[in-house]
Amino acid sequence: MTLIYPGSFDPVTLGHVDIAIRAAAIATRLVVAVLENPHKTPLFSTERRVALLQDALGHVSNIEIDSFSGLLAEYAQYKADGTTAIVRGLRTPGDFESEARYATYNVKLSGGIETIFIPASPSLSYIASSIVREAAFHIYSNKSDDVALRNMVSSKVQSALRARFSEGDI
Amino acid sequence: MTLIYPGSFDPVTLGHVDIAIRAAAIATRLVVAVLENPHKTPLFSTERRVALLQDALGHVSNIEIDSFSGLLAEYAQYKADGTTAIVRGLRTPGDFESEARYATYNVKLSGGIETIFIPASPSLSYIASSIVREAAFHIYSNKSDDVALRNMVSSKVQSALRARFSEGDI
Amino acid sequence: MTLIYPGSFDPVTLGHVDIAIRAAAIATRLVVAVLENPHKTPLFSTERRVALLQDALGHVSNIEIDSFSGLLAEYAQYKADGTTAIVRGLRTPGDFESEARYATYNVKLSGGIETIFIPASPSLSYIASSIVREAAFHIYSNKSDDVALRNMVSSKVQSALRARFSEGDI
Amino acid sequence: MTLIYPGSFDPVTLGHVDIAIRAAAIATRLVVAVLENPHKTPLFSTERRVALLQDALGHVSNIEIDSFSGLLAEYAQYKADGTTAIVRGLRTPGDFESEARYATYNVKLSGGIETIFIPASPSLSYIASSIVREAAFHIYSNKSDDVALRNMVSSKVQSALRARFSEGDI
Amino acid sequence: MTLIYPGSFDPVTLGHVDIAIRAAAIATRLVVAVLENPHKTPLFSTERRVALLQDALGHVSNIEIDSFSGLLAEYAQYKADGTTAIVRGLRTPGDFESEARYATYNVKLSGGIETIFIPASPSLSYIASSIVREAAFHIYSNKSDDVALRNMVSSKVQSALRARFSEGDI
Amino acid sequence: MTLIYPGSFDPVTLGHVDIAIRAAAIATRLVVAVLENPHKTPLFSTERRVALLQDALGHVSNIEIDSFSGLLAEYAQYKADGTTAIVRGLRTPGDFESEARYATYNVKLSGGIETIFIPASPSLSYIASSIVREAAFHIYSNKSDDVALRNMVSSKVQSALRARFSEGDI
Repeated sequence: MTLIYPGSFDPVTLGHVDIAIRAAAIATRLVVAVLENPHKTPLFSTERRVALLQDALGHVSNIEIDSFSGLLAEYAQYKADGTTAIVRGLRTPGDFESEARYATYNVKLSGGIETIFIPASPSLSYIASSIVREAAFHIYSNKSDDVALRNMVSSKVQSALRARFSEGDI
Repeated sequence: MTLIYPGSFDPVTLGHVDIAIRAAAIATRLVVAVLENPHKTPLFSTERRVALLQDALGHVSNIEIDSFSGLLAEYAQYKADGTTAIVRGLRTPGDFESEARYATYNVKLSGGIETIFIPASPSLSYIASSIVREAAFHIYSNKSDDVALRNMVSSKVQSALRARFSEGDI
Repeated sequence: MTLIYPGSFDPVTLGHVDIAIRAAAIATRLVVAVLENPHKTPLFSTERRVALLQDALGHVSNIEIDSFSGLLAEYAQYKADGTTAIVRGLRTPGDFESEARYATYNVKLSGGIETIFIPASPSLSYIASSIVREAAFHIYSNKSDDVALRNMVSSKVQSALRARFSEGDI
Repeated sequence: MTLIYPGSFDPVTLGHVDIAIRAAAIATRLVVAVLENPHKTPLFSTERRVALLQDALGHVSNIEIDSFSGLLAEYAQYKADGTTAIVRGLRTPGDFESEARYATYNVKLSGGIETIFIPASPSLSYIASSIVREAAFHIYSNKSDDVALRNMVSSKVQSALRARFSEGDI
Repeated sequence: MTLIYPGSFDPVTLGHVDIAIRAAAIATRLVVAVLENPHKTPLFSTERRVALLQDALGHVSNIEIDSFSGLLAEYAQYKADGTTAIVRGLRTPGDFESEARYATYNVKLSGGIETIFIPASPSLSYIASSIVREAAFHIYSNKSDDVALRNMVSSKVQSALRARFSEGDI
Repeated sequence: MTLIYPGSFDPVTLGHVDIAIRAAAIATRLVVAVLENPHKTPLFSTERRVALLQDALGHVSNIEIDSFSGLLAEYAQYKADGTTAIVRGLRTPGDFESEARYATYNVKLSGGIETIFIPASPSLSYIASSIVREAAFHIYSNKSDDVALRNMVSSKVQSALRARFSEGDI
């Protein structure tokens, strides 16, 4: 089974890494796919987001990192290879509410590609990229201690965030 | 009983049509009212949204299509005629959370006009105008197959979306 | 429009009274219908529950108190008179989750009788018959001060609870 | 991948059948496993529940029907064959809340067997075995028209329910 | 115990006042702290928001009004004095979902400062600053009757809103 | 400030221990109070539940273990000493929904004793006494490996569960 794990990954968190590794353990092949959203300005470019995912997950032999723009349903059809499904993590009941809507929409737009969900590991369920960006903005703008970010992202992502916010151009 | 069904209807979906028809079946008169929000740029103009609703619902004899700007509570008082209530569809528990807040606020601002809720038909409960706009943007920008939109909007709305996104100016 | 407001009303609370009065204000006729559930032993008999509702709501001219056993969908068909719907109050997102399920089930079982929802008035939204029964059991068993029950039920219901728990046979 | 789909299936509904067929489409092998709960009296015996599942799903070549008692985590380890996960359907945010708890508990008790979730198809998301049992009890006890049950269960299950409640011994 | 009650308070509502007074009753000292968010344009300046809080809560002897920018976790460490916690009101399950995430994040970023929650008083649970701003914009732009705002904010805040929207520059 | 932490604690879990220790850190005195519910048969007697709490929390100098029957509101008034509040842990949005209802009820029944909430630590948020009882029943009835229970309860509680279920009389 091919699983496609789409997301913004801006940046990849330890929560994303956990879902990817658990999804890869049940799939033959896992494609982690960075969404390029033309309507939003990300913190990191698509290339940088792909590189940070590569660093975090490249050691897992059946994981492939990719990126796409446009409809997930079309991308999933394009990457499909035999049995194929989309995979998403769920942290809260509210996540389920919006993700279930997208799952139905994607099964219709893709001509039948299902979405399966994996529940977040409880100890990582509070992590969100938006919280990471907000914390890093304050910590690196003020040159505060960044020890707390270690619970949320890898050291490579910490370095990328430090570099990004030291530019001082947010 | 007069029921007032307010919304952005940008564009009207099959979910809206279902709620309107079910609301019209229990009301003497149903006013479907397009909100002009000065703080947002809609996909379709108020006139176009009214026209698409007229096309979808004009055949139901006790349905009237209208538009308004400003406070719903004031508009509802203005349109009231005998027993009058606002009506809204509910798709999910999260919808209830925000809608219940607005219902209380509107009963206070209007001097007593209540809001009643009708649950979405399960098969239509995943549809949202935001999802329709996103799908249509990708499908018509890329000249992809739009068959999947048929589950979400009428063919008239499909045509309007096709025309809108072929302009290429989003 | 006839509205049918079913429930256990064991006992009727100020929350129920509020929903009934607001529902009666938008209906031509409101039937408040006590459910006799053969699988549960209620605190008060059907007759007593009907009498307490009569006492609380009998002064509203378009409210009728009734009772039924069996399927709500069949009872609603039997009581239907012109445009007819079921009405239920909603206090929380969790209420919506279970009530929406029943609404769909009832529309199918009744051949089309819809359910509409009225949101609980915020100040009454914490009241539940189960909480009233539990409080009354402790208060009257221990002959404690029952002033707090006044926020939740009428004085007639307070008297009924006092009598019920002074029997000491729960 | 082997997927294990546990449940009470008392009785199997069209919602269960939909989840099973969609799960079987992404698995190499799907084991639908009836839980024998020593603390509850089911409507149908384990054997009858297995037979009704066999009837509904036996035509799908990679589906196997089984039953178990005791801990799901132990049963899942026993049935595991290569990559193995548990699968459950999710209808509502409230389902996710309880199922996520069980998923964590099962991954710990089983030494690593994950649970994946498949969202209910919207049109079937209101169906629950408890609602089916309640409807069937009233319909067959009163010899009412059972046409509405067709939306929720197969005709074989309808016959089983009719026979069960005609015994008159609930 | 020092409690820190952070928020935008744009403007302070009767809901905020209720939480502050109830929090002050269990704390030795309550610091109500206005967040200056550099990424958002508030309706009222930080100074005005502090002044309106001072007006609403200055009569409570153990309440101190302050403001901060940057990370709440750092501010809380800076204001800590003996046992110290953050306090937030909760109106709905959805509030809990986002607030619990921030509580975990803050305990990690602050080296151990916990967040405690106080449930909104039911009669005030529908009030939100965003709803107040929207209502005031319409009411004062159109010189409508502002009696309904009395349920949501103090008369001083009403005056501030009236002045703000009479400038006509939103 | 005195905090009263009521519960069934049947048995105490690592989730309860975490809430108690975090509550004790912000209180002058924490009373952990075992509820004797005359309508339920617990797994462990009140005395045993108190003893297991004593074992788990007795080393914290400002924690006192107690038990009560009857109304929590009356017990809280009886134990109150200066500023006093009830404290409860929250794991999920659903927990908030029921706990907020009880908080309002208790503030009214007790003449003003508030309830504050502490969010569960994410890594412990899946633990529930009901899940522990179910797991222990199966594990000890079948003499399975009980290593997984270590994530949920202390070794003393594990021993108590082993002894309880080896009696074989559930």
